[in-house]
Amino acid sequence: MSKKQIYKPKAISGFPEWLPEVRRVEQLWMDQIRSVFESYGYCSIETPSVEELDVINAKGGDGGADVDKEVYVLERLHKDDDDKEARLALHFDQTVPLARYVAQHFNDLTFPFKRYQMQKVWRGERPQAGRFREFYQCDIDVINVDNLPILFDAEAPAIIWEILSSLPGMENENIQMRISNRKILMGLLDALGVAEDNKVIVTRLIDKFEKLPHDQIKNLLKTDAGLNDEQIGKIFDIVSAKNLSDISAENDLMQEGLDELSYVMDNIPDGAGIADLSIVRGLDYYTGTVYETVFVDDPSYGSICSGGRYDDLAGNYINKNLPGVGISIGFSRLFDRLRIQGKLPVSRKCPTDVLVLPARDDDGKGAQEIARTLRAGGANVEIATAKKLQKQMAYAEKKGIPYVWFAEDGEVKNMESGEQISADPKSWKP
Amino acid sequence: MSKKQIYKPKAISGFPEWLPEVRRVEQLWMDQIRSVFESYGYCSIETPSVEELDVINAKGGDGGADVDKEVYVLERLHKDDDDKEARLALHFDQTVPLARYVAQHFNDLTFPFKRYQMQKVWRGERPQAGRFREFYQCDIDVINVDNLPILFDAEAPAIIWEILSSLPGMENENIQMRISNRKILMGLLDALGVAEDNKVIVTRLIDKFEKLPHDQIKNLLKTDAGLNDEQIGKIFDIVSAKNLSDISAENDLMQEGLDELSYVMDNIPDGAGIADLSIVRGLDYYTGTVYETVFVDDPSYGSICSGGRYDDLAGNYINKNLPGVGISIGFSRLFDRLRIQGKLPVSRKCPTDVLVLPARDDDGKGAQEIARTLRAGGANVEIATAKKLQKQMAYAEKKGIPYVWFAEDGEVKNMESGEQISADPKSWKP
Repeated sequence: MSKKQIYKPKAISGFPEWLPEVRRVEQLWMDQIRSVFESYGYCSIETPSVEELDVINAKGGDGGADVDKEVYVLERLHKDDDDKEARLALHFDQTVPLARYVAQHFNDLTFPFKRYQMQKVWRGERPQAGRFREFYQCDIDVINVDNLPILFDAEAPAIIWEILSSLPGMENENIQMRISNRKILMGLLDALGVAEDNKVIVTRLIDKFEKLPHDQIKNLLKTDAGLNDEQIGKIFDIVSAKNLSDISAENDLMQEGLDELSYVMDNIPDGAGIADLSIVRGLDYYTGTVYETVFVDDPSYGSICSGGRYDDLAGNYINKNLPGVGISIGFSRLFDRLRIQGKLPVSRKCPTDVLVLPARDDDGKGAQEIARTLRAGGANVEIATAKKLQKQMAYAEKKGIPYVWFAEDGEVKNMESGEQISADPKSWKP
Repeated sequence: MSKKQIYKPKAISGFPEWLPEVRRVEQLWMDQIRSVFESYGYCSIETPSVEELDVINAKGGDGGADVDKEVYVLERLHKDDDDKEARLALHFDQTVPLARYVAQHFNDLTFPFKRYQMQKVWRGERPQAGRFREFYQCDIDVINVDNLPILFDAEAPAIIWEILSSLPGMENENIQMRISNRKILMGLLDALGVAEDNKVIVTRLIDKFEKLPHDQIKNLLKTDAGLNDEQIGKIFDIVSAKNLSDISAENDLMQEGLDELSYVMDNIPDGAGIADLSIVRGLDYYTGTVYETVFVDDPSYGSICSGGRYDDLAGNYINKNLPGVGISIGFSRLFDRLRIQGKLPVSRKCPTDVLVLPARDDDGKGAQEIARTLRAGGANVEIATAKKLQKQMAYAEKKGIPYVWFAEDGEVKNMESGEQISADPKSWKP
């Protein structure tokens, strides 16, 4: 520190950071999500921020096709020339880490394995407005060996519905989970004689059902997937169907999909979601139930909570058949939307419930004794360090501290109502 | 997934990962630490995992001299050739991020700014047994503009003592915080006429007071710092002093240090720490109070909780005088020690309180209704999916679920005591 050169710091694009009053709401959200996950018996796991690059490359997961472009690789700044270690990359989702975790610890886990995971993930995309390069995801998955009961497909929407309707600031949001089952479309495509390669193209196009004009999708189904008008008509009938009972299955797979979807819709709480057969998720990874969740007033914002059922979690890492069902809350995208819209209940800048003002000529111990007693009763307490009353009160106001305790008079003031009463720190509660 | 090639995953050296039952205790620890931090009014902040490399280089912080060797730099796997972005590095501590945060958001913060931060940090050291490359630190700091009352120097030990004596599994650990004030030694070196350059050498040597034989330190003080026997004798008298009142100040700085240390010792709870003048922390960064915390039975394990007072948090980022005092719990090192020693209360593999066994011929809704009611009462509940009673009970036992609810009979069984009673889900509590 011999020469003082000021390096003025600035925000790093794509790496969000909140002021304490916003972080406080973020914590409330995290606590609430965790609490609901746990109320359904999901256990927490946390995996390292990194995976070996070979592990990431061995598994596509739910990361999307272009995900290898988005990976951040670590380099030691002063690495040795003889460095023979495996290359490490920050995880870009929590599905690859889960698959690796389950394979690695298979013998130590009890199945069905119900886990939640709330961690940061990283995607090294080019920075652009509204795109995060570091963000939180909150995932749940249930994994079983060989066979996983359909009841878990109905549990995920119930959990998400409970969470989304209880997050502070979300009270007035009109959010809708849309649920489908890929077996229905896949069965139909089988029945229509669509070739394997073209099935992928069809699902990718149907995945854009809400984004692209339907005439354009129909054209692309012709030109890119080689379908004829009759096939396209049947597909559109199904994915536009308003009522499951209007659909008649053309083969066993389609019937299975309809039965599973009916079971799910029958077993979720009222209002937790609607059946929508245009939901397919663009990924081959999903094999049955699929979920997406949108703001009804702004579906173009995209899904804030997606997932589904898959046949094979970790086939690339372990020779076991591990079907599962999972769903992921895009925490940061959801949180930041409400933050920007000014809908978060941002108020207090600190967890402090009470600011204790020391008595005149107090050596500090009197105020400390009061603070200790209040803390033992469960309150969060600070002791004022400013000397003048005016500054002390200004501090409480600026930080949004709801109560001020006057040690001199043994009185406590409610900063919002202005009411001031005598109180005993042993019995008083905020 | 056309060809199935098994890539068997393994642990990555230095990146710890726990099974669910260990992670559960880690969460209990985190919750307890957060709760105590908040009870003293500290607010949470969370900074991005990365800082610009220039920001890290502009500030040494509390990271130690060789820290630039240990930084992990990020590279996008497929970065564009015209990539002109700033280089990003994972943070190696929480002091650099705090300094940058306070400078960047200075106008939006209320001072004294009391913040806690519980995040992962990364150090790209060569892997070796017992060394983490990714680990948690739990830090508190209080920052003020121009002047920070000494009362906060006494608050930090109180908080740490409260935490360390309440973490599950730590009940029988004999832990000692050792507190000193650098002004005492610095004042003495002034009084002894030791040159500036040699002061650094002296503090680095005294920092090894417990690790090296004292004769060796005395020799090095002679050869490396050019001190004579009388100077060395005086230094040893001071750093070995058992009682603060035995020391007489040789100048104002020394007296200031003695007064401050006496205040701190006077204002911490009984048992929260001892004065130990051999504690200096090897870093120029600290200017007053310094803390270290060791296992009394195994001081060679090193400090698990260190910190101190500094004059100037963010002088490299902002033209403000920002003194502070802070302390950092080396969470992962502490936690992993107890884990390896088998002292953590590891039991349940999940948060589930109750496993509900559906009635015979139940379509699932009866069990779901019971589960919903129990959850509304605050219990964490799963529904059994195995069909046979024996498998259901084995699942509860393996996962350590304390209660099993028999929907058929309306009875609940305490798995530990074996007691089974009739119960109403509306009123029953675990």
